[in-house]
Amino acid sequence: METDLSPLLSYLDEEGLDGYLIDDDASDSDQRYVSGFDAPDAYQTLVTADGGVHLLISGLEYGRASSDADADTVTRRSAYDYQDLVAEYGQYGGRIRGVAAFLADRDAESIAVPRSFPTGTADGLRDRGLAVTVESDGIVEDVRATKTEWEIEQIRATQRANEAAMAAAEDLIASADVEDGVLVHEGDPLTSERVKEEIEITLIRHGCALDDTIVACGADAADPHDRGSGPLEADELIVIDIFPRDKETKYFADMTRTVAVGDPDDEARRRYEVTREAYEAALDAIEPGVTGADVHDAACDVIEDAGYETLRSDPGTETGFIHSTGHGVGLDIHEQPSVAPAGGDLEPGHVITIEPGIYDPAVGGVRIEDLIVVTEDGYENLTDYPIGSGPTIE
Amino acid sequence: METDLSPLLSYLDEEGLDGYLIDDDASDSDQRYVSGFDAPDAYQTLVTADGGVHLLISGLEYGRASSDADADTVTRRSAYDYQDLVAEYGQYGGRIRGVAAFLADRDAESIAVPRSFPTGTADGLRDRGLAVTVESDGIVEDVRATKTEWEIEQIRATQRANEAAMAAAEDLIASADVEDGVLVHEGDPLTSERVKEEIEITLIRHGCALDDTIVACGADAADPHDRGSGPLEADELIVIDIFPRDKETKYFADMTRTVAVGDPDDEARRRYEVTREAYEAALDAIEPGVTGADVHDAACDVIEDAGYETLRSDPGTETGFIHSTGHGVGLDIHEQPSVAPAGGDLEPGHVITIEPGIYDPAVGGVRIEDLIVVTEDGYENLTDYPIGSGPTIE
Repeated sequence: METDLSPLLSYLDEEGLDGYLIDDDASDSDQRYVSGFDAPDAYQTLVTADGGVHLLISGLEYGRASSDADADTVTRRSAYDYQDLVAEYGQYGGRIRGVAAFLADRDAESIAVPRSFPTGTADGLRDRGLAVTVESDGIVEDVRATKTEWEIEQIRATQRANEAAMAAAEDLIASADVEDGVLVHEGDPLTSERVKEEIEITLIRHGCALDDTIVACGADAADPHDRGSGPLEADELIVIDIFPRDKETKYFADMTRTVAVGDPDDEARRRYEVTREAYEAALDAIEPGVTGADVHDAACDVIEDAGYETLRSDPGTETGFIHSTGHGVGLDIHEQPSVAPAGGDLEPGHVITIEPGIYDPAVGGVRIEDLIVVTEDGYENLTDYPIGSGPTIE
Repeated sequence: METDLSPLLSYLDEEGLDGYLIDDDASDSDQRYVSGFDAPDAYQTLVTADGGVHLLISGLEYGRASSDADADTVTRRSAYDYQDLVAEYGQYGGRIRGVAAFLADRDAESIAVPRSFPTGTADGLRDRGLAVTVESDGIVEDVRATKTEWEIEQIRATQRANEAAMAAAEDLIASADVEDGVLVHEGDPLTSERVKEEIEITLIRHGCALDDTIVACGADAADPHDRGSGPLEADELIVIDIFPRDKETKYFADMTRTVAVGDPDDEARRRYEVTREAYEAALDAIEPGVTGADVHDAACDVIEDAGYETLRSDPGTETGFIHSTGHGVGLDIHEQPSVAPAGGDLEPGHVITIEPGIYDPAVGGVRIEDLIVVTEDGYENLTDYPIGSGPTIE
């Protein structure tokens, strides 16, 4: 992948620093992005002021890193007598000395580090005479916000898997019978857990993993962070929010649909319609020069005009539209840019969710979410899945 | 859960510090352990010198934290005017000021932090006059190494799911036909990927998640970090290593079996037998007063006596027994204690793997792994799964 690290190099140049060091494992998306590599155990990535990318890694990962990583050099820890250092100074002291030797080899005496850089390593390097500065703007995260064509294709592929999972969930719910107000499938109550299992199995068959899914019914769905549990009920809104990650590429996708079986009451139906209008208003607002804040405002306008609270109309509200309109999606499920009150310029290549919702424990929750990419003249919807195809909400 | 944080409190007392602060999300197992809480987004946990546990958390997570966390107090960020601080000082500056206010409220002026604590937060707090010291011994990780009865039950439960997955994998492989030297299932080549899918689906049905599984055949299995890919071959050793995590409790389990279909050659069979003897020797060595190093030595003795290299006999070897005998398992898949050359005392309540192996690209890989808990008079095997029940290795 062609990553553009020039903003980072400009920063190093302006600050007169020799390099930018990441010390983490590939659960840190910045490191995965910069190194083009994925390892379960911690390793170090140094970007030198000349743009070189240099990895320091365990012997076990050396072969794979040498062939797979987007790096100019890959060095084994053993090159700096790592085992001897650990034997003499312990795991912690030995590790720091190994990293210091690696930096010295690259003439890096003053380095920037990300905000999340381990204080243990930072202080250890400082004790050994290096200058360590925190790069506090999140430059790499900002670079990551703008996706390459290749990245957009990876996200699109994860979204296809997501759509297969959503279809499996909707089909399962649609096939349920209703007995005593509860959904029943093959003689057993159809639970949130059973639908989540269907979603997860579908995703695994499509090469994706996920730790979490939301299938939340009734009052559960009024808390946007509630994952949902127990039997699904007829006549209630059911929020299905799926955010899988491709196991190979590590790119996420994200989508939400709200469905119901039976006959939701008029207030629930009205909230569904208002949410859908807010979703459409937010999409319509995406055009050249717009900010995330503008798009968020467009969604808030619709919801407030319909008589519901938002965090804009009442920062302390616990009902109504109680989250932001969207967030960036990529190697992290929540990343830059933000489609929220503080959201800055939306730029071509930004991949964001648009996901307004209305919540109240007395009525339940509604949320509709698509994944889109900002383009030169507006946006392209990466979601190829109808709204309202699910059971009987409309 | 009753966690024993007394080693941490003794440390704070000795160093004259006011508290111990963690700033991470629940992907940090120390924070999950100390707070008894699990959140997707970053939050802060402060252990004060009097043993109090105090959480600082977003409004979205406040309700769940108040009911679920093992904390004396839970405070919303908004209590420190978080949004105003972010509006005035930006995301980064506002966040630091919020944390500083939370610490001031608890009279914490001097704090210890874990090695992994974000340098951005540490330096930001230092700039605001706080004393921040890295606790470099990993005290919380050491506390976590000794499991409570409750924790052992959680690990045992995950291991039951693991055994169901191993049985599903072995059954699938055993049911395969052989055509032109390749395993065939229902007309298609039986691949590593297909067996992993079977494992993952079984684990999902048992409430577990996993990002990774190893089903590696032939030369692939000679690299202990290779996950395996492509068609499985007859007459070759197949290493199956499964390490799932319960989605609810977050406790891991870990086990490995080596199987084969057809007729592995005599050298492969010999390596299997030697590995099994090394596994038994390591288990036999577990008794009161033994160290992880002693147990590792017991496995190395068997493997070296049989004429194979180990990292003990040749630190540079790329064939033979090229990893350590085991590791702790709990909220992390790799944690303390270590069953390796530097491994210290094994103590009752330590949950460890015993997993010797022998590797060579020319022959393939063998590994046998069980999960055990150290007891007052030896060990209890948490694995309830036979060795050699799989297809035709013996």
